[in-house]
Order: sequence, then C-alpha cells, then structure tokens
Amino acid sequence: MAKTESESVSEMVITLESVRESLIRQEDTIVFSLIERAKYPRNSPLYDLSYASIPGFSGSLFQYIVSHSENLQAVNVLTKMLNDLLCNRLGDMKTQKNILSFPDNIPGSLLPPHNYPQVLHPPSASININSTIWDKYVNQLLPVLVAEGDDGNYASTATSDLDCLQALSRRIHYGKYVAEVKFREAPQDYEPLIRAKDSDALMKLLTFEHVEEMVKRRVEKKAMIFGQEVALFSNGTEGKCKIDPSIVSKLYEDWVMPLTKVVEVEYLLRRLD
Amino acid sequence: MAKTESESVSEMVITLESVRESLIRQEDTIVFSLIERAKYPRNSPLYDLSYASIPGFSGSLFQYIVSHSENLQAVNVLTKMLNDLLCNRLGDMKTQKNILSFPDNIPGSLLPPHNYPQVLHPPSASININSTIWDKYVNQLLPVLVAEGDDGNYASTATSDLDCLQALSRRIHYGKYVAEVKFREAPQDYEPLIRAKDSDALMKLLTFEHVEEMVKRRVEKKAMIFGQEVALFSNGTEGKCKIDPSIVSKLYEDWVMPLTKVVEVEYLLRRLD
Repeated sequence: MAKTESESVSEMVITLESVRESLIRQEDTIVFSLIERAKYPRNSPLYDLSYASIPGFSGSLFQYIVSHSENLQAVNVLTKMLNDLLCNRLGDMKTQKNILSFPDNIPGSLLPPHNYPQVLHPPSASININSTIWDKYVNQLLPVLVAEGDDGNYASTATSDLDCLQALSRRIHYGKYVAEVKFREAPQDYEPLIRAKDSDALMKLLTFEHVEEMVKRRVEKKAMIFGQEVALFSNGTEGKCKIDPSIVSKLYEDWVMPLTKVVEVEYLLRRLD
Repeated sequence: MAKTESESVSEMVITLESVRESLIRQEDTIVFSLIERAKYPRNSPLYDLSYASIPGFSGSLFQYIVSHSENLQAVNVLTKMLNDLLCNRLGDMKTQKNILSFPDNIPGSLLPPHNYPQVLHPPSASININSTIWDKYVNQLLPVLVAEGDDGNYASTATSDLDCLQALSRRIHYGKYVAEVKFREAPQDYEPLIRAKDSDALMKLLTFEHVEEMVKRRVEKKAMIFGQEVALFSNGTEGKCKIDPSIVSKLYEDWVMPLTKVVEVEYLLRRLD
C-alpha cells in the first residue's frame, strides 16, 4: 500500500506543502465527525451548567466527561508509560529518559502526532485556544448542525462531540506549524511586524482570500460527497445529505480559518522571544 | 431538520425495518472508522503481547488502553452518575431509583443506544463475542487494511482502533435485535428448531444470500465514495481511494455477516429459556 500520511511527515523536514497536505486530510476527519454527530439530536442537558451538579466539579456534564476522557486517553499518560516501557526495552540507553516528550499542560489527544518534527519555537508552542473552540462548537455549531431534541443518548453524544472537538482543535492549532513554515520561508517579511507587535499587519500577511475561498468550496464538496445517502438502487434518498454542506463551508469561513489565523498571529508574536 | 435515527427508533416499537435502517446507517460509521484507521501504519508493537510488560496487567498495550478507555467512557459509569443526577433533579419521584438501567457486565460503549426499546429476551441479551471480533480485527483485518510500518503514533492509532472495534462490535451484536424481530414475526418457524437445538437449521433459516450479496456491494460502494480523494480541480488524485473498497466487502462477507448470524443463532437458542 501507499505510504501513509504520518510516515511521509516523519521522514521529511516540515514544509508548507506537508502542512498543507495534513490540513486537507484533516478536513475529511472533521467532515466525518460532524456527520457522525448529526446522528444524535441536540441533547442540550449535556451542555447545561445548571443541569449537572457533580460533587467537586464545576461545569457541565459534557465538560466532566471530556475532562475524564482527556485525562485517561491523554497522550501524556500513555507517553509516560511508553517512556517507561522503552527505557526498559532499551536498557542500554540509560540516558534516554525521555524518548518521547510532551508539554504537560496541554491535553495530549489534541496534540499533533508525537513524531511530528519538533520544529516549533518553544515560547510559542503552548498557545491554546480550546476554550474558544469549545464555546463556538457548543453555542454556534451544534444549534445549526443537529436536530433539536433529547433522546437521552448522552454518552454516545459526548463521545461524538469529543471526536468533533479534537478534530477541530487539531486543525486550528496546526496554525502553529503553518506560521512556523511561513516564517522560515520569509523571515525578512515577518520580523519587522513582530518587533512592532503589529497583529493587524501580520493577519493581513497571512491572509490569502482566494485560498480561503477554495478551502470553503472544497469542504462543502466533501460534506456533500461523504454525507450522501448511498444506495445500490434508486430508493428516493438520492441527493439527501446527512448534514447541510453549507454549514461546513460556513464553519470554515466563520471560525475554523479565522481561528487558525489567530493561532498563527499569536505564534508569530512570540516567535522572536 | 429531519428526524434523527435515534429519535425515530425511540418512538416506535422495534421492527425489522427499523433494525435494517440502523444496520445500513452503521455501515457508514464502520467505513468512516476504517478510513480513519488507514491514516496510520500497522504500528504492531501496540498489539504485541511480548512488547508491553505492564505491572498488574497481562495483555498488549492496546488491550491496556482499551480496558481503560472502556472503564472510563463506559455508559455504566455515566449511567450511575445520570441516575444520581436525575434522582436529585426529580426529587419527588423517589421510587425511580433506576431511571436508566444497563447490564453491569457489558462494556457500556458497545451497547446500543440506551433508549433502544428493552425488547431483548433477558437470557439471550448477554451474548458477547467481542473476543472473536478483537482477534479477527487485529490479526485478519489490520494486516490488509493498513500499510506496514511503525510511526510511533500509538495513542492516535489505539483511539482509531477503538472506534473501529466499537462500530464493528455494535453492528455484529445488533444480531440480537435482528433475531428478536425475526422470531416475533414467525415464532412457529423458529420454536421447533430452537427446541431441537438445531443450530444448522436456524442458520439456514436466517441466511438470505441475495440480501448478503447486496450488502457486500453496498459497503464496497460506500468505501469507494467515502474513501475518495476529493479535490476541486483535476490534480491527479482522481479515483484514488484511501482504502481498498474490496477489503470492506470482504470484511462483511468473511466475518461481519457470518458473526452477526452467529449472534442471531446464539440468541435464538436461548430464546425459549
């Protein structure tokens, strides 16, 4: 079989092209996860702060579930375990105490694959806008994506939400890699603006309207193709789509691409620290 | 928006048609999850019993991760919490101690949605062939589905494996519902065979070759459509598919449909207990 995305990334130095390819592949993951979430209705008690009163925890039922899933699935935990295992297995490599290393304060499963080249500038690497993503997801996206209603399937719904949030978060935080490669390609363009802390000018430098227009059209096409009802014979479902493709296009226009650029600007502002 | 699948299920008495619709929708979930798994190479140390040596745990790294994810995400845990919350919220309904109830011994997240009508015959409801599904997944499916190699992305790979296993397990254990509705529609056909413990005759009664042929063709078509590279303009990736569609068709032919029927037969054999 062909080389996988992650293999090809691990073999090469990071380039704008490799980051771009990853962003395109991540569109599929985002669209899949949204289609899967739309199987369930809104199930709003999940997100309702006044609904849940969990001892020792202040937040919604969904936040509670996520905080536990994140803790458990987190690469941090796994990394520690793998480190231990690898150190045991590679007994003769006593100095390699941290073959795999992650920042401790970022939910592990929102991170890029661990073998992604360590190319980020350390002061910029910790940027995290998950709280904004969370808010927009629950309050802006869900109301238009899914049907109103409550079928009580909170566990499945929360799992599905988590998939969407992870996919969106990963995509948006990839802005760090986008910013890093763009900076490396033309430091002379960025350095004066960074020194002047000119966010607006940086934002302008990072914006390519024709590219954004193309991304919007592509994700809409993906939603249409991946969300279609597939039947062998004509059965009246032709053309039906499990989600409205224009919602995905609007999602990208209104906040996936803008937030990615927010991450890029934040990253660049600390790039010379 | 249109009524969601789970809403329509919760409103009606279970029928062969509603079970069939659910099985068809689950095909999409299975295909999506396989496409996502194929982003990563085999990463065989994950499944290697001799690789991991985890104190107090006998099994592979993947089994360890799954056992923890299942514990954490399990509907059982959530259900208990929801029960508590609902009991608090509905303080006046003191008698409803278990508004939601699940068998304790089945991993929660492999269960059908909780609002699925409680229609299963209790002695048959606990059938569980997850160990067979696990074995076939790791040893038969993965070797043909994904590229050889090890990129070290064990956490992401395991999460992706878990999605595949849950989707496959749910689909196969839906055989219980299939068996129940078939039994109800024609008890006179099934009862003599059940009393005679005639597994072969039951299997024959449950087998419709032309339907199976159609399912195989449909999942292959879904893999082709959902796995395609989508581009706005011709870029040489047309016709490329992220997974080989014939693998999905073969997966259904060789073990998804046969194992579903194994569940159906097992279910029926205990249907008169």
